[in-house]
Amino acid sequence: MEYRISEKLKNLKPSAIREIFKSLTDPRIIAFAAGNPAAESFPAEFIEKKAAEILHNSPVAALQYSITEGYPALRTAVKKRLSDAFGIGRDFDETIITSGGQQGLELACKVMCDEGDVVISEDPSFIGALNAFRSCGARVVGVKTEEDGIVIEELEAALKLNPRAKLLYMIPTFHNPMGITTSAEKRSAVYALAKKYGVLILEDNPYGELRFSGRDVPTIKSIDEEGIVIYCGSYSKVLSSGMRLGFLCAPAEVMSKIVVAKQVEDVHTNILSQMICESFVTSDQYLPHLEKIRALYRRKCALMLDAMDKNFPDDVKYTRPEGGLFLWCTLPSGFVLDEFVQTALKNEVAVVPGTAFNCDTTAASDSFRLNYSTPSDEQITRGIEILGRLLKDRK
Amino acid sequence: MEYRISEKLKNLKPSAIREIFKSLTDPRIIAFAAGNPAAESFPAEFIEKKAAEILHNSPVAALQYSITEGYPALRTAVKKRLSDAFGIGRDFDETIITSGGQQGLELACKVMCDEGDVVISEDPSFIGALNAFRSCGARVVGVKTEEDGIVIEELEAALKLNPRAKLLYMIPTFHNPMGITTSAEKRSAVYALAKKYGVLILEDNPYGELRFSGRDVPTIKSIDEEGIVIYCGSYSKVLSSGMRLGFLCAPAEVMSKIVVAKQVEDVHTNILSQMICESFVTSDQYLPHLEKIRALYRRKCALMLDAMDKNFPDDVKYTRPEGGLFLWCTLPSGFVLDEFVQTALKNEVAVVPGTAFNCDTTAASDSFRLNYSTPSDEQITRGIEILGRLLKDRK
Repeated sequence: MEYRISEKLKNLKPSAIREIFKSLTDPRIIAFAAGNPAAESFPAEFIEKKAAEILHNSPVAALQYSITEGYPALRTAVKKRLSDAFGIGRDFDETIITSGGQQGLELACKVMCDEGDVVISEDPSFIGALNAFRSCGARVVGVKTEEDGIVIEELEAALKLNPRAKLLYMIPTFHNPMGITTSAEKRSAVYALAKKYGVLILEDNPYGELRFSGRDVPTIKSIDEEGIVIYCGSYSKVLSSGMRLGFLCAPAEVMSKIVVAKQVEDVHTNILSQMICESFVTSDQYLPHLEKIRALYRRKCALMLDAMDKNFPDDVKYTRPEGGLFLWCTLPSGFVLDEFVQTALKNEVAVVPGTAFNCDTTAASDSFRLNYSTPSDEQITRGIEILGRLLKDRK
Repeated sequence: MEYRISEKLKNLKPSAIREIFKSLTDPRIIAFAAGNPAAESFPAEFIEKKAAEILHNSPVAALQYSITEGYPALRTAVKKRLSDAFGIGRDFDETIITSGGQQGLELACKVMCDEGDVVISEDPSFIGALNAFRSCGARVVGVKTEEDGIVIEELEAALKLNPRAKLLYMIPTFHNPMGITTSAEKRSAVYALAKKYGVLILEDNPYGELRFSGRDVPTIKSIDEEGIVIYCGSYSKVLSSGMRLGFLCAPAEVMSKIVVAKQVEDVHTNILSQMICESFVTSDQYLPHLEKIRALYRRKCALMLDAMDKNFPDDVKYTRPEGGLFLWCTLPSGFVLDEFVQTALKNEVAVVPGTAFNCDTTAASDSFRLNYSTPSDEQITRGIEILGRLLKDRK
């Protein structure tokens, strides 16, 4: 039988990252291509103890159907943390729990975009988000992004050109894949443009709790007086990725539709995990735990950057992240990205080619993404030495 | 700001059931309107013990990112059970784990339907499925359904009338809301028509393990030689609803797209719960546990039917389910459904009006759904007496 797959899914390919992931099952490969949090970042003992407690004392609450919006006590805890640490939450906002940050992105797009509507995005950007938008039938339009964030003039040109733009997708803090942070000035400029053109901002901040150097820059949502920002967060990097817990904060009118869309997507998010999460983030262990993770990534990022400073030729450029999990490395002329990535893999180092993050899937790239949270210290040192050798060995 | 919500979500209302659910927080209300499994149906002790074991022995596997298709050992267990108990699974099929049966339905529609495409459904049908289809921009076309299943002539007429039909949604076993089971003859006829018109069947079987009387009828998927059936199952009624675990079995070509759509929807399903589920369904406790639940619902359903036989006037008609959680009650002339449902609620009995399950949301109904898994025995007896009194008190 010839299957009449929908137009929007027909041409959607599995993410290149996940394909590269498969090579990562080979233990000889040094995995700079992954995006997994370090195993040490999971508070496993706490989770074990608390799961037992909850299942012993409240088995029915933990195992029965629950409400779509999420476990009320966890929603309260999220709201408090968003307000305390990120200046987020006005009277017109609502906060719900999602099945990972990923679901928040997909729901926001589904609720706002009909097929053919446009999502404007930083270019490059997180492949999981771009494909979520495509899976909803939206068209992704990329805007060039530099060290201090999206190029404002090009953003305005894209907004003018695309009256069907409904969403502006941004990862302003510790960007994936670039590892950059958008300046406060650019955040204000982006907000003003979104307001002017009647486009909602989808602010994705999965790494927001992972600042390990530099100074906080206010979230875009914190300056949202008009109710035009949907803010998306995640517990994948600070509690457990496998639990699939995230959250959304958005104006109530938009949120009421997001809740309907979530209800028919998975009814609600796994409730036992929500209960465990709530007890962790309201415990006195949470803030010290965040400090521990930040210290871990501060050290690992510095280790990678030091090795790059030592081993990479001067004309190889790379970002110096102040948080998050990734940095972005740009090849000098004389290299073909695909060949370099393949050669690296042959030399047992996996990196993700920049093409995987392009908004235009046919566009070229001269950059690749490196991750420092997954590999061991020894792998970081050895892997960067190998890449350095390959980078010196130009034609 | 005026929000430009997508056309497909703009007019989608939260399900009437969930609105009625809110009245159910009142402890005085007898909840015949719910659809929750009985609290006794959760193997809480096993889950508590196993969660502790898994988190102690394999914390990283249980807390780290995992693969979209699902925990491999659970997929193997699902495949085995589908083959052993339901005759399901051919060389061309793939099986994956979903975040509840609900996600399976939504993914199947998203992958097959562009906006404006048609899903044909039994009428009435499960509101969560109908709204999932609508949230994808699909148009739902209902086909009259009787005691032995969908009306075949009307199904063929609908297929002829709707060349944009992509899916035929069916709950052939212990139908929600009707409590009926489609006959083997009608299943074959439905299969033949789907094949003739090039439409995929989406066979939803969340209650398939809950037969408490009568004889098994082969699943439609078991006769699927052409690869035209997507089969959807759930662990919500036999393990835990709050865990949000379900599964899909579909031809590999369709499944490859479903996996892409799932990847961008929630990356993967909560992995700890998948591991707990796997250890339960492969343990020697699973089959006895199923027998225990079947016995429980056999008793509760009989209790409700006996009370109805005793208390309801002869011209009130109702189905006599052989499994599942629901039965369907049709009012005689002289009653207005909405008034009856409101009067029942004033008398502290909540039922769901049939209008909530209509494919055409503007159509009328003379029926309501009753659930026997949630209320206590005493509530069943008392609630049916109250309904009986109201039914006798006609104008």
